Amino acid sequence: MPPGPDDPPQGSFAVIFISKLKAEAPGYEQTARRMVELVESMPGFLGLESWRDADGRGVTISYWRDENAIAGWRDHPEHAEARRRGDEQWYDDWRIQVCRIERAVRKS
Amino acid sequence: MPPGPDDPPQGSFAVIFISKLKAEAPGYEQTARRMVELVESMPGFLGLESWRDADGRGVTISYWRDENAIAGWRDHPEHAEARRRGDEQWYDDWRIQVCRIERAVRKS
Repeated sequence: MPPGPDDPPQGSFAVIFISKLKAEAPGYEQTARRMVELVESMPGFLGLESWRDADGRGVTISYWRDENAIAGWRDHPEHAEARRRGDEQWYDDWRIQVCRIERAVRKS
Repeated sequence: MPPGPDDPPQGSFAVIFISKLKAEAPGYEQTARRMVELVESMPGFLGLESWRDADGRGVTISYWRDENAIAGWRDHPEHAEARRRGDEQWYDDWRIQVCRIERAVRKS
């Protein structure tokens, strides 16, 4: 078993993005791959993990150094455009929760 | 699209449990179902969502009113015993992140 990503430090942030894709979401996969490429270049980005069920219900948890880093990603023009398309074309529903890491533990 | 669970309130907590199941995890499903039943009876429990990939990589996010509620669940004897079995028999790896909800938004 690989050790997995580093634990997010106390005081950093997790952004939980829960979504439900439409049955037909043309262009979604290509944009999703581009967003992963782009987010990895953002200052203060610490990491990302995603899951999606066969029925289109998914969650992506991204980790950030601070609130400024989250705002920088939110305001990136290409990401803003992707969100606009997502609302119109790809997502039946989404929810976002921004939360501050209090502590992290892992299997010893 | 159903409205989904309520947004967790600011100041409540999310516990992110990321895990990797072994290829063979006898008894896991039964205990997992029992844990869901049990957690829903815990004071301060606000909700739960789970995803798991075909390869056994999963995440469960549970929501809690406060740290006391999280500690109550951690210390429940039946849950503690399930965790012990999990470490020994079911999980190749797990990570937990406890975080405080700063804000929540959803698709309008």
